[in-house]
Formats: sequence, structure tokens, C-alpha cells
Amino acid sequence: MHSLSGKKVVLLGAGNVAWHLGRALRKSGAEIVQVWSRNPKHARRLARMLGATPAWDDMPIKKQAHLYLIAVKDDAIAQTVARIPKGNGITVHTAGSVSIDVLAQAATKYTGVIWPLQSLTAGHRINFRKVPLCVETSCAAAAKALSPFVHELSESVTALNSEQRAHLHLAAVLVNNFSNHLFALAEKVTATQHIPFEILRPIIAETAAKVQHLSPTRAQTGPALRNDKQVMQRHLQLIGNDKDLRQLYQLISKSISKHPH
Amino acid sequence: MHSLSGKKVVLLGAGNVAWHLGRALRKSGAEIVQVWSRNPKHARRLARMLGATPAWDDMPIKKQAHLYLIAVKDDAIAQTVARIPKGNGITVHTAGSVSIDVLAQAATKYTGVIWPLQSLTAGHRINFRKVPLCVETSCAAAAKALSPFVHELSESVTALNSEQRAHLHLAAVLVNNFSNHLFALAEKVTATQHIPFEILRPIIAETAAKVQHLSPTRAQTGPALRNDKQVMQRHLQLIGNDKDLRQLYQLISKSISKHPH
Repeated sequence: MHSLSGKKVVLLGAGNVAWHLGRALRKSGAEIVQVWSRNPKHARRLARMLGATPAWDDMPIKKQAHLYLIAVKDDAIAQTVARIPKGNGITVHTAGSVSIDVLAQAATKYTGVIWPLQSLTAGHRINFRKVPLCVETSCAAAAKALSPFVHELSESVTALNSEQRAHLHLAAVLVNNFSNHLFALAEKVTATQHIPFEILRPIIAETAAKVQHLSPTRAQTGPALRNDKQVMQRHLQLIGNDKDLRQLYQLISKSISKHPH
Repeated sequence: MHSLSGKKVVLLGAGNVAWHLGRALRKSGAEIVQVWSRNPKHARRLARMLGATPAWDDMPIKKQAHLYLIAVKDDAIAQTVARIPKGNGITVHTAGSVSIDVLAQAATKYTGVIWPLQSLTAGHRINFRKVPLCVETSCAAAAKALSPFVHELSESVTALNSEQRAHLHLAAVLVNNFSNHLFALAEKVTATQHIPFEILRPIIAETAAKVQHLSPTRAQTGPALRNDKQVMQRHLQLIGNDKDLRQLYQLISKSISKHPH
């Protein structure tokens, strides 16, 4: 249960991903020795929760950690790498759409990426052992150094290179951000008719539940799939003057009709 | 538990909706006296399961039922209504996007609509008490006649007129059919990189779980929301020559950026 005991970790970043990875690492027995953030308040808050020392601005990052975990905004990764001192540890970033190459100048012996493929919100607890971790390393020795961490954190670990991870990040945007926006557009449609969004929740849950065992290509149904022109025409009438929703409705319907279901 | 005992029901249709409503009605104590379908095989199969008499083609529909439940394809409803004999019962259709007016010529005393707002598949058992039922009736007396049925079937019953139901049907297409198509497009993207779709299942489940208590407008995240042009540009590069996916990506991103989150 505590196979990471004796492992020292420095967290750089104090947002959603740092919150979840920090907690999960500590739960697995690792020692979070330091939490650095650009924002002193954020560094202090997360450090307190994890029993670590806070740091900010140009305060020095501790030496001799086994793992330096960067969980800052994508475009701040490069400058954050530069803060990490020379050592035998591994420097890791946690971004889906950033190549491992951003770590090329890291002063540690090894580099790698751990991307948790889940929508993480600080304070919203989840079972981290179920979060798929996409892992990339600079070499076989780096893979060996990172292996105990990732396998202790999650039961779902997949080795992916930067190109694969970038594609998977695009796919995640489609299923998470874009689906959620469809839910928001549906909320807008029901609001015009004074229907509570509540009534759509069971079908949203079932839509996600169905593809937990089926392929979505096989689960597809609806007017566009069966080319039901009458229903689609009626929907376009209801959409009326909402030009964006009209375009989106037509484009997705066309895409469904072309897809090999 | 058996408050529908003594109630006689005729099912017209033997597809997914008839399968679920027939089972749920029977479980609540109603007697399914007859199952009619255009297809004799389908009529026999569902009738056997429900302990009913099968009928097809121009075979006569039984008189004196309390409820005639039409669950055929949208464009077959009108001709199916014409088969129902005169009587004191209520004729009901089960379609989301069809007005109650299609029942205007029904020979029974009352007419109504029961639309189960859920993705129903014959053979795939669900807790029907949790399925939201959208109900419309021709008059107050019809509402009284239908009330015991709907409240026995589900704990979520909402009165909606045909205009409201049509809008809700559009909203259901957005959250169910369109979201599922985004899952299918994501599956296609991951397949090009030899990544199993499996890895996306937890984030799909979490996306639906989040809006079970939050408004989707509040749950929105992602590059389009924070106007992260670099990530969006990278995604468009990955999409490459797939013109449909490119258009869809740009359109939904634009729609997210305009939506009041």
C-alpha cells in the first residue's frame, strides 16, 4: 500500500492537476517535500494540505527529489523547467497537448510525461486509481525510474508518444468539452420552453453509460442516422433564427449520415 | 404495488418502446390483452413475453381496452390510429416529435401522449421508474384517465404540450445522438493512432456525471473556453485533411466562445 515511501516529490504548480496528483502521491506513501507556485497563496494552501514546504517566485527548488512534477499552464512549462536543479531525479510534465521535447533542457537526469486523462477539479475527490495515465519517457532508464510512481497511482497506465498523446488530447476535447457544450445548448433550448434541465439528466447519464461497453459507432441512433428528413426539418423550424445552432445541427447531422455506423 | 390491476392495455407496435412500456405496465399489474404489429413475427414474440394475444395486418383490435398504446414509427402513427375501435378508453402515442393532433380522428373517448425521455433498447433492462415521462392529454378528463398509468410507471412525470415536447425532442437529439457522434469521431481519431477507445471511457462517464448536479454552462472547460489559440491551432493541424471534422471543430469552438459561461 505504501510502496512509494522514501520517494521525495517536488510539485511545481498548485492547480487542479497538482491538487489531485499531490494527494494521490501522498496517499501512496511519497513525501511531498515542496510545493512551488507563481502565486504564494496557492503554494501555501496546497503545501499545507500536503505537509510540504511552500515556495514561490525565485525561491530555490529543493535538490535531490526523485520526481519533479510540473503541473502549470501549458505555455509556462518551459520557464518552469528552468527552475529545477541538477540531480539524478526525473522531471515530468502533465500536459496533454505539449510534446516531451519542452523538457529537453531539464537539468535532471531523466524526463517524462504523465498525462491524467480525466476532467480534474481541485476539491472534487475521485478514485485516482481509475484515472487513465498516459506516460512517455525520454529513454528506457527514465521509464524504469517513473514506473513505480505511475503504477502506484493508477491501475490504468498506457505508454504513448507525444504524437499519440496530442491526438488523444483532441479526442478528449471532443468527448468532454464539446459534449458538455451540446448539453449547454440543450439547456438553452429547454429554457426557452420553461422546461427544467433536470429532465434531460437521465438520458445524458444513459448516453455515457451505453458506450462504457458498446462502441459509439454501434450505439448511434436518431433522425440523422435513419435519414428522417421530416423530423430534421421540424427541428430546423424550431431552431428558427439561431444561426449558430442551425449550422451546428446541419453539420453534425451530415457527419452522422456519412459515418460508417 | 399492483395498482393497475384490472386495467386492460392494447399495444400497437412491437419495437423498443413497446418492449419497455409493455413490460413496465405488466409489472404494475396491467393486463396486456393484445400486441399488434405490422410484422407477425414481432407481434408474436412480444405477445408471448407479455402473455398477450398477437395480431397483425388487418386482424381486429380488441374492444373495451382502457389504454391503446401506439408505439410505431412516427409516420405510421396516423394509419395505426385508424385501426383502433370505438370505446371509452384512451388512445396514446409515444413519439417525441409528433403533435397530439395526429390523434384527432381517434375513435376512443380520450387521447393523449406519453413520451418516455430515454434511449430505450429492447432487451436492455433499465429501471423504468426513473425514466422521465412527458405527458399530454386532450382534456382534463383524459388527464384523469391517464394519470394512474403514468404515475404507476414512473416517479418522474411532467405535463408538456406538443410545442414543448418538440423542443425537448430537439434537446434530446443534441445530448444523446449528437454527443454519441462526438464519441464516434473521437474513436476514429484514436484509431488512427492505434489507441484503444477504452482509454476515453472514464472521461466520458465523468462528463455526464458532472452535469447530474451542475449546470453544463458552469461545467464548461477546455481550450475554446479559455481562448487558447495555440492548442486549437495544434488540433486543427492534427485534423489535417478531414474537412468535416475541421468544420465541426471550428464551429463548436466558436459556439463555446460565444456562449455565456
